[in-house]
This record gives sequence, C-alpha cells and structure tokens, in this order.
Amino acid sequence: MALELISSAKCYNGVQKVYKHVSSEVGCSMNFSLYEPSSSTPGETFPVLFYLSGLTCTEQNFIQKSGFQKYASEHRLIVVGPDTSPRGCNLPGEKDAWDFGEGASAYVDAVKEPWSKHYRMYSYVTKELPKLVSDNFPTSGKFGIFGHSMGGHGAIVCALRNPHLFLSISAFAPITNPSITSWAKDKVFKNYLGEENKELWASYDSCELIKGYTGPPRDILVDQGDSDEFLLQILHPENLIAAAGQSPHHVKLTLRMQPGYNHSYFFVQSFIGDHIAHHAKILCPAKYQDKPKNTPHEK
Amino acid sequence: MALELISSAKCYNGVQKVYKHVSSEVGCSMNFSLYEPSSSTPGETFPVLFYLSGLTCTEQNFIQKSGFQKYASEHRLIVVGPDTSPRGCNLPGEKDAWDFGEGASAYVDAVKEPWSKHYRMYSYVTKELPKLVSDNFPTSGKFGIFGHSMGGHGAIVCALRNPHLFLSISAFAPITNPSITSWAKDKVFKNYLGEENKELWASYDSCELIKGYTGPPRDILVDQGDSDEFLLQILHPENLIAAAGQSPHHVKLTLRMQPGYNHSYFFVQSFIGDHIAHHAKILCPAKYQDKPKNTPHEK
Repeated sequence: MALELISSAKCYNGVQKVYKHVSSEVGCSMNFSLYEPSSSTPGETFPVLFYLSGLTCTEQNFIQKSGFQKYASEHRLIVVGPDTSPRGCNLPGEKDAWDFGEGASAYVDAVKEPWSKHYRMYSYVTKELPKLVSDNFPTSGKFGIFGHSMGGHGAIVCALRNPHLFLSISAFAPITNPSITSWAKDKVFKNYLGEENKELWASYDSCELIKGYTGPPRDILVDQGDSDEFLLQILHPENLIAAAGQSPHHVKLTLRMQPGYNHSYFFVQSFIGDHIAHHAKILCPAKYQDKPKNTPHEK
Repeated sequence: MALELISSAKCYNGVQKVYKHVSSEVGCSMNFSLYEPSSSTPGETFPVLFYLSGLTCTEQNFIQKSGFQKYASEHRLIVVGPDTSPRGCNLPGEKDAWDFGEGASAYVDAVKEPWSKHYRMYSYVTKELPKLVSDNFPTSGKFGIFGHSMGGHGAIVCALRNPHLFLSISAFAPITNPSITSWAKDKVFKNYLGEENKELWASYDSCELIKGYTGPPRDILVDQGDSDEFLLQILHPENLIAAAGQSPHHVKLTLRMQPGYNHSYFFVQSFIGDHIAHHAKILCPAKYQDKPKNTPHEK
C-alpha cells in the first residue's frame, strides 16, 4: 500500500499533508489528510485522532476551514481525515444527488449491488486506514475519532462498535438516529444496505448502538447549534440524549446545545479547541493529570 | 448606499456576515465580509481592522481559511474584508489571466482606459468602505489594516498614504516592491497606470512609500515564509528591510522570516493571532497598558 504525498504545508509548527493511495477496501484511489505535529524529542510518538467529514465534503474542507491545527499542535496529536466516499467508480447514480453516492457514503459497508464492491467506508475507516497510519507514521497506538454531521454519525458508530480501537469520541451536529430519517429510508440505508435488513440498519445507528453498548465506559462530547438548518430534519439530538439515558453500560453523553450556531464550519471552528482537548485528555492522560501541589514548609 | 446581508453565521460568539452593496467608486456591485464581536455592554463600540486578500481571492478565502474570528472575538475588533476587485464589468481581458483583471486589482486607482472607470480599489478601500462601515456599524473610529500577498501590498500602501485613517499596519508575505516586478511592468501597473507614469507607480510601491514617509511613527509587522513559492519572483522582503532602513521618519519594521512556511493560508493561520494582537495593542491601547502592580503593605 504505497502512499503518494500530494501536498504538504507547514502549519502551526507541524505539517499539514494530503496523501493518496489505492485502497483495497473500497477498490479505488483515496485521498486522506494527515496533520503531524513537530517532534520535540527524537522518537516521539503521537496519538491519532480520526476526523470524518459530512455530506459533500472531501478531505479538504476540514483542513481548510476548521482551524484544528493550532490545537493538534498544542496537544500533540496526529489528525487524519479521509475523503467521505469512494470516487470515480462509475456506478449508476453515484453523481446524481448531493446526499447519495459520491460524498455520501454514510460510512457503512454496502451489501447491495452495485454499491457493495466500493462503498465499504466502514471497513476503510475501522481497518484499512488505522493500519495504514500505524504502519507509516509515528503513532503511540492510541486512537480517537470525531466528525461533523454525517461524519459525526460515522464517528460515533465506528467508535461504539470498536471500543478497543477508538478510545475517545466526539461529534459536531451528528446525524444521531439515521434509521428514522428519509435520508436513510429513501436513499442511503435503503440502497446501500437493503430495505429489509433492519438489523443491519441498527448496527449503523448511534441511538441503537448506545442503548446496546457493553464496552468500557465512554464519555462522548457532542456540540449542536440550536440554529442548525438541519436540526429538525435529520439530526435529532433529543433521540441521542434519550438513548444515552437508556444505556446500561456507562456511556456518558455531554450534549451541549449552542445557542445561535448553524451547521457550518463557522460553528465547528468555534468549538474545535474543546473537542481536541476532550480527546487529548483521554489519549494522552499523563499530560493532564493534576500535578501534586506544593505544600508549604512548616517550621 | 443600501447594504444587503447575504450570509450570516455565528462564530466564536460573534457573527461572521457578508454584505453586498452597489459601490459608487468602482461602479458595480461589491461584496465584503464583516465580523462583529458580541457586545458585552450596551452601546459598545469596536475598532475596525480591514483585511485585503491576495490574487484570485474573493471576500470568502480569508473568512473561511484564516481562523481570525477566534482572535477578533477575544480582542473585540470588527474585521472587514472586501473582495479583491470589481467583477462582471465586461472589460476586455478582465477574465483572461489569474494575475490581471478580476481578482487582481493591485489596489490602485487605474487611470488608463478601459480600466479607469471601475478599477478604483484604492479609493474604495481608503474612502468608500471605511465610510460605509462607520455609517452602519458600531465602530470606535479607530481603524487598522492588514493583508496577504497582493493584499499585504495594498495594506501597506493604503496605510502609509493615509496615516490618519489607518493607525496600525501588518502584512503576510506582501508584494513589497511591485514596480520592479514583471507583474507590474507587464501587467497591472502598465495597464492600469500607464507605462510612462513612474511617479504614479511609486505612489503604489511600499518600498518607495516607506522611504518617503513623513507621518506619525508606525510599527509594521510582517511575516514571511522562507519556503514561499513566490518569494524570489515577486515578494522581495529584503527590499522592504532596506527601504525601512532608509526611512527618516519612524517606520519601525519587524519582518519575521518564518522557516518552512509557504504562501498559503496554512501559513497565514499560523500567525494570524500575532497579527490581530499587534493591531489590538494599537487600536485599543487602554486594554493593554500595564496594570499598576500591587505594592506590599509595609507595617
């Protein structure tokens, strides 16, 4: 799996790179972004935080618009952002809609033709990409994951289904309960997974996964703008809160409704620092432990 | 001069807006971005920092990619970013090159046909836009200006020629000495100003303006990446340093060569916080004065 570096720019003392490689999971060429902090000591390794983007995005939106590099540099995390879907596979209808096909993988492994050969973003994100990054970059072996909108959905799903792979989770304005949306019922789940496979649908639904979660304790941070134009139609944060309330196994959800914010990267950038800090505290805990206080010397 | 709000998004507690208006100076519809911090007290006013973008940009690049909003919110500045040129004026050749015509005004007032009617960005930036902003937003009356590349050139030129209008100046990778570049000699100055008008060229050349500057003392902050792909061809920071050395009238230049950085917004975002702080210290000095130290009570 050869990596081709297609761009590189110094940013906040680290380097923002974009790589291209031929993916065995999705069967085509894929781009991903990778931010690497500068090493302060020889042989330094870094935790890796994966970021999944939303509908219509490529690997570029997040690296251009979120301003995450400042915080990744400060907290010393590698941050990796894949493209949102396979591209150029010449499948019928792959370019016909903004919320289906290219740019709209829903981060599932499709089982229906003609999508099943290429639309395997779940396996790409949870298997191929972590291995590729581990094999080629100085990682500490600790991974976290976050994302925005469709990518927030992907992040929570990938993390709850792989609790020993992803140790930290957060999301901006995630699609929390896709099974009940017309997006899934008329488009992505129907076509990628099949109308009849409702158990398979549930395995890609954050609300269903939280209720059934039996892994180690998890703190999930979610920010949601209350002026988000997609709030009522597709995001359903109230369902995620309800599902977390039914979680028997230690999923602690901190969902912050942020007054006045919409769905854009102007919202994401406003809280990106909080999210990176959330992951850093879990992925590099030694740095954040309380230092022992000086006790006054008594005579 | 009616303003039409064309987009608005909350960002770091303030609001990132884009307005459209019909400009009398350039004779067409113009967009500009305006970030307004949230008011902490009724009737609060803010200094205004103008940002001029580089070649090919619109008013969007800076607001999407620089991450300035965090710092503008913290330092409580209104930040205004105009488009880089008139658009849609149907002038012959206006769309033929990336570095001439649309997106490449050079921030001059053209005197040659067919450009002289519309390509009046110098007057737009130094007269119409400051008045428009003052008339419509809660400004303190103190203005600063900065920019990137062609916009860094524009910022230094506009500020040194209008020292009582713009009190603070900085630039990222500015075109410092356009008169000696083929960009000016073959394209912008030749066509907008005329080959024969060398005095007019000098009035739009930062190096010439610094040498002849007689206004109040000015501290100019400039950051320049040493891996900038345009460094040798068009930027010439060494000429700006030499010119500042010949300045008889108090232009203090702090030019930081930043190792490894290129010309992109990955470079701009890495130092945007320093630039906003530079302007804030000049535009709102009361906030940054050293507070009197507590003296220990002696018995």
